[in-house]
Amino acid sequence: MALLPLLTDQQASARARAVFDDIRATRGTDYVNDIWRALANDPAQLEATWNEAKRVMAPGALDALTKELVYVAVSAANNCSYCLHTHTASARAKGMSEAMFSELMQVVYLASLTNRVAIGLQVEVDQRYAQPPAPDAS
Amino acid sequence: MALLPLLTDQQASARARAVFDDIRATRGTDYVNDIWRALANDPAQLEATWNEAKRVMAPGALDALTKELVYVAVSAANNCSYCLHTHTASARAKGMSEAMFSELMQVVYLASLTNRVAIGLQVEVDQRYAQPPAPDAS
Amino acid sequence: MALLPLLTDQQASARARAVFDDIRATRGTDYVNDIWRALANDPAQLEATWNEAKRVMAPGALDALTKELVYVAVSAANNCSYCLHTHTASARAKGMSEAMFSELMQVVYLASLTNRVAIGLQVEVDQRYAQPPAPDAS
Amino acid sequence: MALLPLLTDQQASARARAVFDDIRATRGTDYVNDIWRALANDPAQLEATWNEAKRVMAPGALDALTKELVYVAVSAANNCSYCLHTHTASARAKGMSEAMFSELMQVVYLASLTNRVAIGLQVEVDQRYAQPPAPDAS
Amino acid sequence: MALLPLLTDQQASARARAVFDDIRATRGTDYVNDIWRALANDPAQLEATWNEAKRVMAPGALDALTKELVYVAVSAANNCSYCLHTHTASARAKGMSEAMFSELMQVVYLASLTNRVAIGLQVEVDQRYAQPPAPDAS
Amino acid sequence: MALLPLLTDQQASARARAVFDDIRATRGTDYVNDIWRALANDPAQLEATWNEAKRVMAPGALDALTKELVYVAVSAANNCSYCLHTHTASARAKGMSEAMFSELMQVVYLASLTNRVAIGLQVEVDQRYAQPPAPDAS
Repeated sequence: MALLPLLTDQQASARARAVFDDIRATRGTDYVNDIWRALANDPAQLEATWNEAKRVMAPGALDALTKELVYVAVSAANNCSYCLHTHTASARAKGMSEAMFSELMQVVYLASLTNRVAIGLQVEVDQRYAQPPAPDAS
Repeated sequence: MALLPLLTDQQASARARAVFDDIRATRGTDYVNDIWRALANDPAQLEATWNEAKRVMAPGALDALTKELVYVAVSAANNCSYCLHTHTASARAKGMSEAMFSELMQVVYLASLTNRVAIGLQVEVDQRYAQPPAPDAS
Repeated sequence: MALLPLLTDQQASARARAVFDDIRATRGTDYVNDIWRALANDPAQLEATWNEAKRVMAPGALDALTKELVYVAVSAANNCSYCLHTHTASARAKGMSEAMFSELMQVVYLASLTNRVAIGLQVEVDQRYAQPPAPDAS
Repeated sequence: MALLPLLTDQQASARARAVFDDIRATRGTDYVNDIWRALANDPAQLEATWNEAKRVMAPGALDALTKELVYVAVSAANNCSYCLHTHTASARAKGMSEAMFSELMQVVYLASLTNRVAIGLQVEVDQRYAQPPAPDAS
Repeated sequence: MALLPLLTDQQASARARAVFDDIRATRGTDYVNDIWRALANDPAQLEATWNEAKRVMAPGALDALTKELVYVAVSAANNCSYCLHTHTASARAKGMSEAMFSELMQVVYLASLTNRVAIGLQVEVDQRYAQPPAPDAS
Repeated sequence: MALLPLLTDQQASARARAVFDDIRATRGTDYVNDIWRALANDPAQLEATWNEAKRVMAPGALDALTKELVYVAVSAANNCSYCLHTHTASARAKGMSEAMFSELMQVVYLASLTNRVAIGLQVEVDQRYAQPPAPDAS
């Protein structure tokens, strides 16, 4: 069970309800995920989190689907069951094919293994990759 | 310091050297990363890891750059310093712009925060996302 | 399901039952949490864990509630569902208000994000924070 | 080495420099931590992160020192060397005594152990702690 | 619910079914674990994972039971509920007594605590343990 | 740099020095690891940690070397550089051959991959592994 009540629209404050409305408008759906209803117990945190999510997940140098794939991969690495269920649904809705999902997860599995090789054997960064980047490079 | 010696080509067994050669040929470079030189202490593991890496990172439903981005994201989630240095270099070589790197990391930061919200508040998966996928959907 | 049976008072050894009794006396309750009933399968480990918990959670330079807040925060970082449920209950019993819980979790979310920034970008410790502390400082 | 250049005031954009100035004014110091100089490569992310940090770490239902202690605890759980160095310094500056630091870390150690007991033995949440909280409870 | 359907023998491709058959033959059982049925959605990954598992878990310098114990310990550290349930069953089937299981988990708890001490206090590796191993030592 | 001074025998309290002496006597060496010198800043925690380490690592149903192997595996999973360096040295001193080390780490790599498969695909525990163990089974 969640550690906080999941607030309905009626239970939420006006400030929280405004975020619910923006979620609905932005996503073109009537449905508001339970994570937002849990966050609604603190409207300032709800607002800050939603605004940041909207800003970060908007397409830019990376398209919206690539961002969803990265999000799913991080959720797998962080062992977040809630996030894996909701964001694979979201990625599929944005065009992730089953072949793409399979390849995505295979990169996650490979990195899980090779990350552990580098950590487990305490391999230090090769001299050529340890150079500081030049300020003008960014 | 690494917990195993980093084997030079001379110190490596014939089986390990063959993997070094395939790494050079596949990547079109003379340079073999230190993680492979550490793995060379066990040629069977070196071979298995390299073959799996070659298979998984090859372009398919996802292109090679997208796979590198996912690899970098997982390495950040797993706190692998070695992997972050080598695979950001690799992603840049495959075309990752600084804007792409910035957006990639911002998705990693966002997921780190929202994964922790879902976990910290113990939000259960919404009923609509908890349905089993149909076998024919894959 | 737990990987070990949860021992009732009748099933537990005399040594384990003595720990159950001390838990009841220390907490002023008749209820013994299931984690202790699982640990009771190894009375020596049960005793060592309980004694350490009693020692560490006792008020000292930090009061009992602050210690519970820290415990909840670490449990969120470690993704421990059992610990989050039992220790938020315990913190509430010790006086954690809903406003305190909200602020506590917001620090956890923030640190989850900024920890990932520092790790993801591999920022090295500033020279001024990398000084060794003086022995007489402690 | 950091994966992005650490921007000096001269190298930073006007938007990033404004954040640097706010950091200096808020903290009453001339010094800007390297993590902010790394984030300055993306001024929008720098601004969002700093604003959120200022909002969350401000005293409220929890005082500023308690928030720093929680931040340090989460950084230890997340294995963030950078954050441990900078935020223990910050906590000491805000009044954390050595006795408080010792007790703080002991709670972190204890939770690391008992979190692992609950996870390792797969103990399910006791019925009495698995009740949904009432909406009016928050 | 799993994010991919668990394929029955009828639903699986010929390549996946061949792996199922090898799992049955290798383990001397009719039962195929659900993790393999999930992986069967990508027969190449299923085959690669099973072959690697067969290679790595075979007795060698370490016997089969010791390998299972290590596998259980890592699964506890990684918070993998599925793996803890299936591999403690597997370890018990290979001869793990309840006393062995108890001692195994106690080492996991101890390492969870002392790993966090070393990380939390940022203790650097003692000079004498930071020496590079000699190539001929392996 | 460590966040606490590493206390010499002269700087340590009598209670801490007694633990140093017991470490020397138990291990048959003049050398005391830096982690104990950091913990010496809090003699009660030093004593509790050392006593627990002595109790848990003593041979029992599992021999001392097997316990060291498990400790190394958990340290790799937890990304503890300090612990990996000191406990691989300790395991080698207790008889771990290079072949054993290689196989140990290969199990760690495999579990890192397959743990992530089970987590990433959210595979639920098979019915047959989800049965509660009988009290008399332990």
